[in-house]
Amino acid sequence: MRTSIATVSLSGSLTEKLTAAARAGFDGVEIFENDLLTAPLTPEEIRARCADLGLTVDLYQPLRDIEAVPAEVFARNLRRARHTFEVTRRLGGDTVLVCSSVDPAAVDDDALAAAQLGELADLAADFGCRVAYEALAWGRHVSTYDHAWRIVEAAGRPALGTCLDSFHILSRGSDPRGIEDIPGEKIFFLQLADAPLPAMDVLQWSRHHRCFPGQGGFDVAGLVRHVLRTGYAGPLSLEVFNDVFRQAEAGPTAVDARRSLLTLQEEVTLRDEGMLRDEGMLRDERLPHEEATPGAESTPREEVTLQEAAGVAGPPAAAVPTGFAFAEVVTPDAEPLAGLLRALGFARTARHRGKPVDLWQQGEARILVNTGAAVRRDGTRLAAVGLESPDPAGAARRAEALLAPVLPRRRAPGDAPLDAVAAPDGTELFFCGTRPGGWRADFEDTGHAFASTDVRHIDHLALTQPWHHFDEAVLFHRAVLGLRAEDSVDVADPYGLRRSRAVSNADGTVRIALTVGAAPTDDTVHAQHIALATDDVVAAARRFRDAGGRLLPIPANYYDDLAARFEFADGELEAYRELGILYDRDEHGALRHCYTRTVGRVFFELLQRDPGHRGYGARNAPVRLAAQHAAQTHAGV
Amino acid sequence: MRTSIATVSLSGSLTEKLTAAARAGFDGVEIFENDLLTAPLTPEEIRARCADLGLTVDLYQPLRDIEAVPAEVFARNLRRARHTFEVTRRLGGDTVLVCSSVDPAAVDDDALAAAQLGELADLAADFGCRVAYEALAWGRHVSTYDHAWRIVEAAGRPALGTCLDSFHILSRGSDPRGIEDIPGEKIFFLQLADAPLPAMDVLQWSRHHRCFPGQGGFDVAGLVRHVLRTGYAGPLSLEVFNDVFRQAEAGPTAVDARRSLLTLQEEVTLRDEGMLRDEGMLRDERLPHEEATPGAESTPREEVTLQEAAGVAGPPAAAVPTGFAFAEVVTPDAEPLAGLLRALGFARTARHRGKPVDLWQQGEARILVNTGAAVRRDGTRLAAVGLESPDPAGAARRAEALLAPVLPRRRAPGDAPLDAVAAPDGTELFFCGTRPGGWRADFEDTGHAFASTDVRHIDHLALTQPWHHFDEAVLFHRAVLGLRAEDSVDVADPYGLRRSRAVSNADGTVRIALTVGAAPTDDTVHAQHIALATDDVVAAARRFRDAGGRLLPIPANYYDDLAARFEFADGELEAYRELGILYDRDEHGALRHCYTRTVGRVFFELLQRDPGHRGYGARNAPVRLAAQHAAQTHAGV
Repeated sequence: MRTSIATVSLSGSLTEKLTAAARAGFDGVEIFENDLLTAPLTPEEIRARCADLGLTVDLYQPLRDIEAVPAEVFARNLRRARHTFEVTRRLGGDTVLVCSSVDPAAVDDDALAAAQLGELADLAADFGCRVAYEALAWGRHVSTYDHAWRIVEAAGRPALGTCLDSFHILSRGSDPRGIEDIPGEKIFFLQLADAPLPAMDVLQWSRHHRCFPGQGGFDVAGLVRHVLRTGYAGPLSLEVFNDVFRQAEAGPTAVDARRSLLTLQEEVTLRDEGMLRDEGMLRDERLPHEEATPGAESTPREEVTLQEAAGVAGPPAAAVPTGFAFAEVVTPDAEPLAGLLRALGFARTARHRGKPVDLWQQGEARILVNTGAAVRRDGTRLAAVGLESPDPAGAARRAEALLAPVLPRRRAPGDAPLDAVAAPDGTELFFCGTRPGGWRADFEDTGHAFASTDVRHIDHLALTQPWHHFDEAVLFHRAVLGLRAEDSVDVADPYGLRRSRAVSNADGTVRIALTVGAAPTDDTVHAQHIALATDDVVAAARRFRDAGGRLLPIPANYYDDLAARFEFADGELEAYRELGILYDRDEHGALRHCYTRTVGRVFFELLQRDPGHRGYGARNAPVRLAAQHAAQTHAGV
Repeated sequence: MRTSIATVSLSGSLTEKLTAAARAGFDGVEIFENDLLTAPLTPEEIRARCADLGLTVDLYQPLRDIEAVPAEVFARNLRRARHTFEVTRRLGGDTVLVCSSVDPAAVDDDALAAAQLGELADLAADFGCRVAYEALAWGRHVSTYDHAWRIVEAAGRPALGTCLDSFHILSRGSDPRGIEDIPGEKIFFLQLADAPLPAMDVLQWSRHHRCFPGQGGFDVAGLVRHVLRTGYAGPLSLEVFNDVFRQAEAGPTAVDARRSLLTLQEEVTLRDEGMLRDEGMLRDERLPHEEATPGAESTPREEVTLQEAAGVAGPPAAAVPTGFAFAEVVTPDAEPLAGLLRALGFARTARHRGKPVDLWQQGEARILVNTGAAVRRDGTRLAAVGLESPDPAGAARRAEALLAPVLPRRRAPGDAPLDAVAAPDGTELFFCGTRPGGWRADFEDTGHAFASTDVRHIDHLALTQPWHHFDEAVLFHRAVLGLRAEDSVDVADPYGLRRSRAVSNADGTVRIALTVGAAPTDDTVHAQHIALATDDVVAAARRFRDAGGRLLPIPANYYDDLAARFEFADGELEAYRELGILYDRDEHGALRHCYTRTVGRVFFELLQRDPGHRGYGARNAPVRLAAQHAAQTHAGV
């Protein structure tokens, strides 16, 4: 019996995976779409590589969210599928996996599903391909293998069969004996996986995955309010079983824990009674300073009681930052960075009066380049962030009350006062006033003007976090700075999953993406980047390239796929392809972005964001990460 | 409001945890039993340390499985509780947590629970203590906070109150508003934790926790049989989404994957039809060679069909090893090891005719000490295992067919042939014949006799595995060697959880405990040990000590606790305490064991096992690990 393995089961670049599969004696592979998109090889080159290695391409996957949709949506889906069938043929394969839809727009109509899958299979047949339809265990309307088979049978097309996956069948507890009712020639593919049982019961959840209040999804503050109303006078005690905290250094974990309780107490005493109407297990994701002032429903007497019960005055209210004053990069050698900034259109507009710090500026984007000797051993890194604050002193007092280490003011007698604290990853956060005469007064103008105005401001910063302290970092930025946290997303790096979570203020003028690597040993854990906002990423990227800048090259497969997914204006996609610009779109608009090469631990992103788009290009991150790994491998950096 | 933290929430030794909690500004701590048992300080010393740090002891926990049990069980439970109350007072605390019972012997009888908890509270009051009764979310009969409170209320004792835990309440989706119906003075304690939501749905399970067939709990072979019966002729393809595999080196993962499929094909073709009667989601944990020969129910015709369909003749059947021929330690300096072995009663009974390898023996326990120059850079480590095999050549052929690297025969022309393969962790496995004239003939007797006969044979070997390849190691030992795998257990090390899984043959003459550290960076990952079976661990330990050997010191708190848990003969516990012998007992008998100091990466265990006891002392492992960390810290090793 022939054996095959999906590329997603192995670590590394596509060619590393193919080599490993062949060496272990597999006959073929399933090629996962992401592995193709991130590969620098064309489909024909991948086909040739497989042939050299004695591997067949047994499956290309997946096509998602195809069936049981309105006609105009299905027309778009067929267009996307056409590209997939083309790629499959170019790869030398003939079977494409189609997963049952999870699209909320899909309807529960087996006849429609069968008709559209039939049409899809006819298109596949035109390419000499066939479609293997698989029920995902969490499919919206089709989630069992027998249901998927009934639809396939109803469609009655030679090029349409079913794909069976042991995970999807056995994880639901379906009876596998019914498989024998399917004719073998209509089972186009068989995917095998095992899984630990039980994957997660409440005992496992309790013993391994608890976290400190504010780091998870429970409404702990709501529960505490109920307890305090009983007159309970004992301590608030944290009992947290967490596999990561068991490994992390005790000191920072204990500080994180106390900050969690201080924030919880603030939430308990300040929280608007009106918010408590719909209490249940799900917490409201907002912290107190993100909420409206307590409204009319709140009874002042009780507030006092709870405040007394909680026994704290609470930290000063959050002074939510309103923008980035600057990002500060420290480096032992300013030249590589200066070259990069110059090519990006920045000018060295000012120099600190007393320290070896240059201010590079373009529009409202300000980068400080610090060559102070004390920091040379750490290489080039993003060391500090200046946050514009409506109340710098108050922000610093809040940070101190919430146990952020307050940094000594590094200033000469004539310098403007600057309040600063250290974030959990060691990044220095400076609270800067928004009025003139602040930190900027310590810098003397050079008289140089910026070469371009392509860059408007800093869109966001991406800061990688120490492995054991990701939840701590998110809580810190929410509690200390008063930023909102968005959902956590998993990002596939070729060498392991990363977790990323963005924090931002309400109008998006401060955005920080917090990211953690795959494991403590992940040596890319310290790569940071500065994303620069532009109104025209194509112009900005072109100017950068024309000025001698090198953009991160993106594989052609990515653009072939984009063409099948989205409609573009004439020449638009060609420009993206030429420059290595990544693209994404949601219902709120588009995001276009590209990357410079990395200097030390720092690189830059040029980013054009449609006003409503709030994302960070998570869908493109695997492509960027694979391209960065490839660039490092080839450059030997 | 006072703040407190459970010691289990932080990493490290008890004193590290206390220091971290105090520095972060906590007012008090909950002391977790395990942290006390593993601490070298007396309860009074812990109390003093807390006082010095400005911490109060707010809770001591937990007492488990106390209530709603038959009278004679309850009498034993009270005896255990008495010790807990004593410890609590010695710690300077007054509140003890009692978790709702998970004991299968507990009955669903609230009146009985209330009566027994009342009696427990009366005993607590005698010690100036009070009992906080908490509903575990997975409690056998009491799993909700309101149920626990009804029982407390019914008991009506001043020293009995309830403990509320946000995890147990919110993880079940209980409505926390009902808390307000409890009088505050009867809420003795409040424990807070948050947790991510949803902890694990089928999507998360699918995307992060799949594994290769044979590594999880699904009956993948059963499913494949059904598919093959349809006439399916496509490939068997592995599609496994696994966070660890995404990070692990692709080469070994691919080999592991192929071995999984080869084993699966063997299982599919050989599996007794009779075994398939009760098919469902739960796999039978046995691999084919562990099973009876296919019985009368099996239809030969179909077997042939399946075999043809699977298209493999399959590897040679497993020749399950029948014992340990030897364990081989390589070392750059034989002296420390020789000293240890001499003190254990071993004698250097023979020397290899052509290599710098000594045979140390006592009873049937044989340790080879290899000072060959080629291995010096790796320090002292357990490098090879000799397995007695009924068919060494067949065992090697099976291993090779299942992709184990076959090792070149390292022998001089006159040496006996020895077949060897490498396990995934690099350990060399030699298949040794059981008849005379084998490997032993290469050794020349020294004429020394062993100094004692305390040690009978090797009871088990404990081999730590590379972090990314734990599942691979278990599958390797099951598939290649034909050993049975026991359940995976989590073991609390002070610096993170470890996972351990034992493999053994049917009569327990070959046992190997496979263990993986907390994280890839775990620097203790390579500690290995050799457990030596004795009929009288007290005599063996005493002889070792009298011969100048140093046993791992075990904290007094551990023995105080043992005294409360078990009944001992006169002087028995005192001997254990004196020598550092750990003790455990289950329905099949007792286990008594103690440890030597570590040389390089190797240490020894002396172990006395009652015939029916199949365990490895998992309950004692946290005590041993903490003691080893403490010994390293103090010795600076």
